Amino acid sequence: MRNPESSEPSRWKAARAAMAARGAEALLITHLPDVRWLCGFTGSNAALAVTAKKAVLFTDGRYTAQAREETRGARVTIAKKSALKEASALLESMAGRAWFDPEHTTVADLETMRSAISGPRRRGFFAALESPLISALRQVKDATELALMAEAAQLGCSLFEEILPRMESGVTEMAVAAQLEFLARGLGAEGMSFETIVASGSRSALPHGRATQAKLPRKGFVTLDFGVMLNGYCSDMTRTVHLGRAGREERSAYDAVLAAQEAGVDAVKPGATCGEVDEAARSVLRRAGLAKYFTHSTGHGVGLEIHEQPRVAAGQETRLEPGMTITIEPGVYLPGKFGIRIEDMVAVTETGGKVLTPVTKGWIEL
Amino acid sequence: MRNPESSEPSRWKAARAAMAARGAEALLITHLPDVRWLCGFTGSNAALAVTAKKAVLFTDGRYTAQAREETRGARVTIAKKSALKEASALLESMAGRAWFDPEHTTVADLETMRSAISGPRRRGFFAALESPLISALRQVKDATELALMAEAAQLGCSLFEEILPRMESGVTEMAVAAQLEFLARGLGAEGMSFETIVASGSRSALPHGRATQAKLPRKGFVTLDFGVMLNGYCSDMTRTVHLGRAGREERSAYDAVLAAQEAGVDAVKPGATCGEVDEAARSVLRRAGLAKYFTHSTGHGVGLEIHEQPRVAAGQETRLEPGMTITIEPGVYLPGKFGIRIEDMVAVTETGGKVLTPVTKGWIEL
Repeated sequence: MRNPESSEPSRWKAARAAMAARGAEALLITHLPDVRWLCGFTGSNAALAVTAKKAVLFTDGRYTAQAREETRGARVTIAKKSALKEASALLESMAGRAWFDPEHTTVADLETMRSAISGPRRRGFFAALESPLISALRQVKDATELALMAEAAQLGCSLFEEILPRMESGVTEMAVAAQLEFLARGLGAEGMSFETIVASGSRSALPHGRATQAKLPRKGFVTLDFGVMLNGYCSDMTRTVHLGRAGREERSAYDAVLAAQEAGVDAVKPGATCGEVDEAARSVLRRAGLAKYFTHSTGHGVGLEIHEQPRVAAGQETRLEPGMTITIEPGVYLPGKFGIRIEDMVAVTETGGKVLTPVTKGWIEL
Repeated sequence: MRNPESSEPSRWKAARAAMAARGAEALLITHLPDVRWLCGFTGSNAALAVTAKKAVLFTDGRYTAQAREETRGARVTIAKKSALKEASALLESMAGRAWFDPEHTTVADLETMRSAISGPRRRGFFAALESPLISALRQVKDATELALMAEAAQLGCSLFEEILPRMESGVTEMAVAAQLEFLARGLGAEGMSFETIVASGSRSALPHGRATQAKLPRKGFVTLDFGVMLNGYCSDMTRTVHLGRAGREERSAYDAVLAAQEAGVDAVKPGATCGEVDEAARSVLRRAGLAKYFTHSTGHGVGLEIHEQPRVAAGQETRLEPGMTITIEPGVYLPGKFGIRIEDMVAVTETGGKVLTPVTKGWIEL
């Protein structure tokens, strides 16, 4: 689905205001989620040249019909050879200098861009943005996006409820993933937003344990971390359940992770730094003597990409703003024994945080 | 699954021979498929520092256990902060200069790499490879890889046979994709190698028509383009079938595409250039008056990535070698009317080409 038209004029306006604020008279956008957010085009090859007055999307012949149908706010040009090179040449004709995103431009692409610029200007024409411009704007979701993200997150919750009764000892992790993904498609998802994690027994101690042919154990944790793509937006959630009767160590570790996760969610509010949110979760695990097993950051932004700005990690000074959508996902991983992670998607509101994945995270013993 | 150990010493040997041939005393590898191919590590964050004598893989705390289990031929170091920066610093201590792949290194990453190098050497320490080194080696698959790719391709063929009877007028494109993906998981695939294309009726004229909620028509083409990931390797195939009774234009266009595809396959042999293979397919469509509707290149390499070197396109002078694995996928797209594409995966052998996807591509009317 293309972005609803209504939201696009405000995105174009925000993009041009941010350009003006940085003194960037022209911008070359090639990161596909940035292109999609701004002009609606969803193809896999795009170079969007933007000035204060003009915008032209360059793509290739595979997307002739699609680009014309989807694109708003920019003229469409089908490049004869390289979309990137033609966009660069156009920028030279319109501006004295153009900015690009160094985090999403390869060294080889920069060479291609420069090769389109006439000799004397070649070296200095393209300037790297000091920090992301479009990706920074994308951190704060507009009402249209928040509605789409809530919908994607809700689909994720339904999947969890559907899959829960099918998680039995003896079923393979991959069969669980297959069921989950099939149900997701059945509910309208375009696909999964990342490779589904089903990590059971001692494999739950692997933070990124992709589903394997391992069978769910009679007794042990199963961590399910999955997300769907719906209308281009990603969902992301994790739940950890226990098969069979748990011991005291497992149970108390679960309680600590849950308390940490809830503390993280409670810390979400406008003005709080991402580092403070991380610390709110991490300090709970520290008090429980488990901080050394919490080996990753507390969360990340999510939207058109599964991992976006801001990073919710120790020391991060980005301040939360209403409209940001982040994950809160502390976990503990005891090598060779077990692991537990609990994750919600949370939208920052005017007054705090709204959990977009409100399916139960209390202790579940199957 | 990690790469079988047996194949790795030869890959390390080939990599170091290629480095020596180019006078590259040290190499920084960050492109994940290159890292996986060479040392077996499958995590999502890696910087592999290689010299003639030594190799060290840097990753982060999420992968402590996994990196030690998977990695062969390199020591593993868990980076405290940035894997990329620590790998760069190590390279400075071991070599006078280090090479990197500009096609898979962002401008921002290059800055990070440079920031690890001491002042006076900073500017000149890292040199961009003039052409890909590891990716070039990866074009030619070894026996282990060819077996894995044949297996992935065979899984794709089974899926096509399974899905065919379920393609009925009224079923949505997305339901077809969902079934296909569920069956793939059931047969052991880790997932799909790209977003499944199910393009029906006039949507078949979109070369990249992702599955939508559109229903398969009573009468018209359906193009299925899909691939699985199995043991890390990608399959890729396309078949186009017709629902209901086809008209003469549809039938003759299909015959032309099939003849073009077969001509492309027949042109595959060691020593042939990729441009010659493209021309073999394209010239058939030219003679049929359909060349202007064939708006993309004939194919691409496939392996750990769905799109790899070589490109099978007009004018490409890369010569085929035994072990290369490419797609041959001509198509025609008549805007607003219909589209047809037929695609096989073909491994280059000593004597010609071996089709890895030998499921029927004759006319199918359902």
